[in-house]
Amino acid sequence: MPPVNPERLLADVRECSEIGRFKTGVHRPTYSPEDQRARAWLVARMEAAGLQAEIDGIGNVIGRGSGSGKRMLIGSHIESQPEAGRLDGAMGVLYGIEVARAGLPVDVAAWADEEGYFGHFLGSRSFIAEVTEQEIDKSVHRDNGTPLRAALIKAGYAGRPRATVEPGRYVGYAEAHVEQGDYLDMAGMRIGVVTGIIGSWLYRIVAEGVQNHAGTTRMAIRKDAGLALAKLCVAIDQRFPQVIGERSVWTTGRMIFEPGAPAVIPGRGEMTFGFRDVELTTLERLDATLRQLIDDYNRQGPCRLTVERTAQSFPALMNKFFQDALEKAAATHAPGSHMRMPSAAGHDAQILARKMPSAMLFVPSIKGISHHWAEDTADQDIALGVQVFADGIERILAG
Amino acid sequence: MPPVNPERLLADVRECSEIGRFKTGVHRPTYSPEDQRARAWLVARMEAAGLQAEIDGIGNVIGRGSGSGKRMLIGSHIESQPEAGRLDGAMGVLYGIEVARAGLPVDVAAWADEEGYFGHFLGSRSFIAEVTEQEIDKSVHRDNGTPLRAALIKAGYAGRPRATVEPGRYVGYAEAHVEQGDYLDMAGMRIGVVTGIIGSWLYRIVAEGVQNHAGTTRMAIRKDAGLALAKLCVAIDQRFPQVIGERSVWTTGRMIFEPGAPAVIPGRGEMTFGFRDVELTTLERLDATLRQLIDDYNRQGPCRLTVERTAQSFPALMNKFFQDALEKAAATHAPGSHMRMPSAAGHDAQILARKMPSAMLFVPSIKGISHHWAEDTADQDIALGVQVFADGIERILAG
Repeated sequence: MPPVNPERLLADVRECSEIGRFKTGVHRPTYSPEDQRARAWLVARMEAAGLQAEIDGIGNVIGRGSGSGKRMLIGSHIESQPEAGRLDGAMGVLYGIEVARAGLPVDVAAWADEEGYFGHFLGSRSFIAEVTEQEIDKSVHRDNGTPLRAALIKAGYAGRPRATVEPGRYVGYAEAHVEQGDYLDMAGMRIGVVTGIIGSWLYRIVAEGVQNHAGTTRMAIRKDAGLALAKLCVAIDQRFPQVIGERSVWTTGRMIFEPGAPAVIPGRGEMTFGFRDVELTTLERLDATLRQLIDDYNRQGPCRLTVERTAQSFPALMNKFFQDALEKAAATHAPGSHMRMPSAAGHDAQILARKMPSAMLFVPSIKGISHHWAEDTADQDIALGVQVFADGIERILAG
Repeated sequence: MPPVNPERLLADVRECSEIGRFKTGVHRPTYSPEDQRARAWLVARMEAAGLQAEIDGIGNVIGRGSGSGKRMLIGSHIESQPEAGRLDGAMGVLYGIEVARAGLPVDVAAWADEEGYFGHFLGSRSFIAEVTEQEIDKSVHRDNGTPLRAALIKAGYAGRPRATVEPGRYVGYAEAHVEQGDYLDMAGMRIGVVTGIIGSWLYRIVAEGVQNHAGTTRMAIRKDAGLALAKLCVAIDQRFPQVIGERSVWTTGRMIFEPGAPAVIPGRGEMTFGFRDVELTTLERLDATLRQLIDDYNRQGPCRLTVERTAQSFPALMNKFFQDALEKAAATHAPGSHMRMPSAAGHDAQILARKMPSAMLFVPSIKGISHHWAEDTADQDIALGVQVFADGIERILAG
């Protein structure tokens, strides 16, 4: 059994949590000063673990182990959502470093921008050679419009080579992560072996109405773009439960009324809407339902709704042999306290799975809190996780 | 009949429209560089019309006529909503200058911030001594939070005395304005004599939910603050028509979901909601209905809605004798093409009406378009308006 040191791992987690600390979580948006500090700190931790570490041209931090034999690639991400949890991403990267320190032949990666500030899994897609220079030229920050290229220059990463998969180097990819939902917590389980990662489809929906004075414009002639979007939100909330799968979720995460003044009827509105499921057929049914609801609105008016799909990831299956290996490790360290489950969140593993066999391991999120600084996992679950993860990787490599 | 010169007035309107021009309208937010240029230009126009002009400590532009006899106070405003119409406010001030040039004993004022960037009728309330230094210290820009005091310092108006009503100087107040609605246009009328100004009540409604991951959080346990506000919008849209008055209007002008990221369930949301009516009893009924709908939501949950009234103006009646004088003038210049009507927008006249008899005259807004750069009024209606307005003021002064 690999000689991991859970106390050493927990010390790393605590030290990393201080970088960009926000309340009990962290604020480390991609390429922010805090994020850059975290990447530099990671390089030092990797070097101390005997890995040869570098930050590449997209901000991926990659630590390569020595030796020429077959090895596993371990990864996750180090940036966070705004004012979010300390473990989401960072824990998986630090597991990788601990597995390396335990002597297993692994490379460890922190993929840049898993949290999607500038795009869609930029770092891991760059590593599998799916990100062109043209895409980098076109990408901008989702909130403030900063060009990705400018952010990379500011961070000092621009101009460096971008690392890609070295053919034949890896047996496969493994990623550990906090669950971010409450399935494990609800079920009283301590380890989740991921069967597949849900697909996530994201849309920009725009309402075009007529901007006018909020006092003098009769209700009968208004074309209120804000009200049009509010109605669509409520229509989705009423209709979707009739067509969803068992674990489907949907969210309007962002809503803007323009011009957004108290005395002006919104002439334009924009919302960001998305849904997720593990079954492609369910995703397709939800897409059709959304478009139907928009058509229904447009037949009535008075505004005009348009929809554009802005991101689309497909469900990704995890490797069966890898799942079995992780499950055997879980049965050894936590008998009766593990379960197989899909991942309801997107992860870099769904990208790496296109190039190599992949696996994911979950530890419980207390009350399922995620993307919030109150996110947490019990220290003993973090410690158990790294033991199961290292043991599972040893079994995969032995396989 | 006062010798007004409609061509000269139209030339002033065109010249003023060039200051901060935006498409066919203007962009002159209160105290912006464009607004400051407009105020400086007004001072020069007033001086050229024989008025003694100054900009006071809140930004009011006041031009005083000579002579010691009784006089009328004429006013409106010169700043605009963002990217809005060229006539909304400016036309009424320029009517005042033309009336002065026609030889009538008047003072002319452009009240600062009628458009409410920093507060509620700051300029006209300052003139009737209802704005304290403490209020100025506390006020901030509605969008960017700039302190009012800082904006006044930057504009160079801070530190000047603030002008107030000189007791006994005025017979009353008169204001001309574009209607901003489509009642005149619909009815084919060219002059509106205002009977009263609607009251406007404004609210900040906050939804408190739980911020969480948009993929991993089961629908059943979500507390989506954004959805809570969308539901309230739709509930208002369904319930209000059952309790409104004939001309009631209501608007959700602003909506914010926080944190506003595609992959995060909104943990907090805020909307700005307001309604208007000419009857106090109707306003009170709408207030009660809004609070009932919020109570209804809170009984069900899962989020918590709170409501705070942020502004409240009461319906203001226009002076009967002044109305009669304006109507006689309208009957002379536009027989059969005038009507009495309430004002559905708030105006400085509702503030001045607290201190002196007041009147308002409307000219038609084409298609009722307002608070948008496409706002317009036919030149012949602008020209007719200034004749009726001057004639009416002469009648009031003779009364």
